[in-house]
Amino acid sequence: MTTTKRGRGRRPADEVRAGVLEAAGRLLLSEGVQAITFDRVAKEAGSSKMTLYKWWPTPGALAAEAYFASSQPVLEFPDTGDLRADLITQLRSFVHWLTGAGRTVSELIGAAQLDDELARAWKESYAVPRREFARVRLAAAREQGQLAEDADLHIIIDQLWGACYHRVLVLKVPLEDSIVERLVDQTLHGVAPVSRRPSG
Amino acid sequence: MTTTKRGRGRRPADEVRAGVLEAAGRLLLSEGVQAITFDRVAKEAGSSKMTLYKWWPTPGALAAEAYFASSQPVLEFPDTGDLRADLITQLRSFVHWLTGAGRTVSELIGAAQLDDELARAWKESYAVPRREFARVRLAAAREQGQLAEDADLHIIIDQLWGACYHRVLVLKVPLEDSIVERLVDQTLHGVAPVSRRPSG
Repeated sequence: MTTTKRGRGRRPADEVRAGVLEAAGRLLLSEGVQAITFDRVAKEAGSSKMTLYKWWPTPGALAAEAYFASSQPVLEFPDTGDLRADLITQLRSFVHWLTGAGRTVSELIGAAQLDDELARAWKESYAVPRREFARVRLAAAREQGQLAEDADLHIIIDQLWGACYHRVLVLKVPLEDSIVERLVDQTLHGVAPVSRRPSG
Repeated sequence: MTTTKRGRGRRPADEVRAGVLEAAGRLLLSEGVQAITFDRVAKEAGSSKMTLYKWWPTPGALAAEAYFASSQPVLEFPDTGDLRADLITQLRSFVHWLTGAGRTVSELIGAAQLDDELARAWKESYAVPRREFARVRLAAAREQGQLAEDADLHIIIDQLWGACYHRVLVLKVPLEDSIVERLVDQTLHGVAPVSRRPSG
């Protein structure tokens, strides 16, 4: 695929691909998932529609990958060595992202519930890779003795990010970043009564 | 509305309403949210379409209320006095319900992301009332000294049920009831290293 383009003296494939994802991400966040058609994105990115067809099986697959690419810089996982602080930083960014990108996120996840192809793309291009970033950070913390050895890292991820999605997708109540600190502390230290907590 | 019916010697309104919800719930769980039209439900329930129009503004509102009514017996909140045991019982039922009703649940929540009217109905007829059942149970436990006085009950709800929804809606990975015990224990006792936990 890419050699043809290089042979014709065009931009390298990587650059074209990044440009398409950038244009698709911009469209997605400003106009929502229904704006992501091959036609519209090709126009916006100054690429040929054929190129898009070659790289993405469906507009949904393109939307999911564009969503991952746009969120990636915002959702970086810090590692300062202090797990609590890093979780708070990352979850605050996540809450801002979720509330800022607002409708786009819920529409994209909503559409994924009704469309198997989009669900697969969303899972493979966004949800599972992002979970892996979190798991790696938590595994490092466990290695450094900041988490119990038998802590289930995937469940921690479900408790933290799942809690935020729960408000947005299921409860449909406002999600505010003021919950983040409490969410992290309850997840790390539990909610058992004080008498059953460590004294030191 | 109801006096007319009584005057004509029909079944009491409550009974008709329960019958419609029962029929709608059956349709919803067997054929999915797109089967919920006033036409179809009226036929299934042996009611007039006019009755349905009078009671529900949209088929989505009917679907959300029918979903609440069908899930209610399964999702009862036990209160044996033992919070951990009761949470495990309830969450196991919830996981079975979610996986059994499978596509219906994710389709309904998915459609709610794309349709404001349905979102409102889902929130008011299902999500927020169910959260309130959980909150009442947790408040009783806190009263009995089984939860820390400063525990944020809404966040506990987000951590527990949000974790399950996270796997189904966001990660699109299988949800198994084998996670329930660990999820409850991590939520109650946290994941801090053993040395920072109570010794007794």
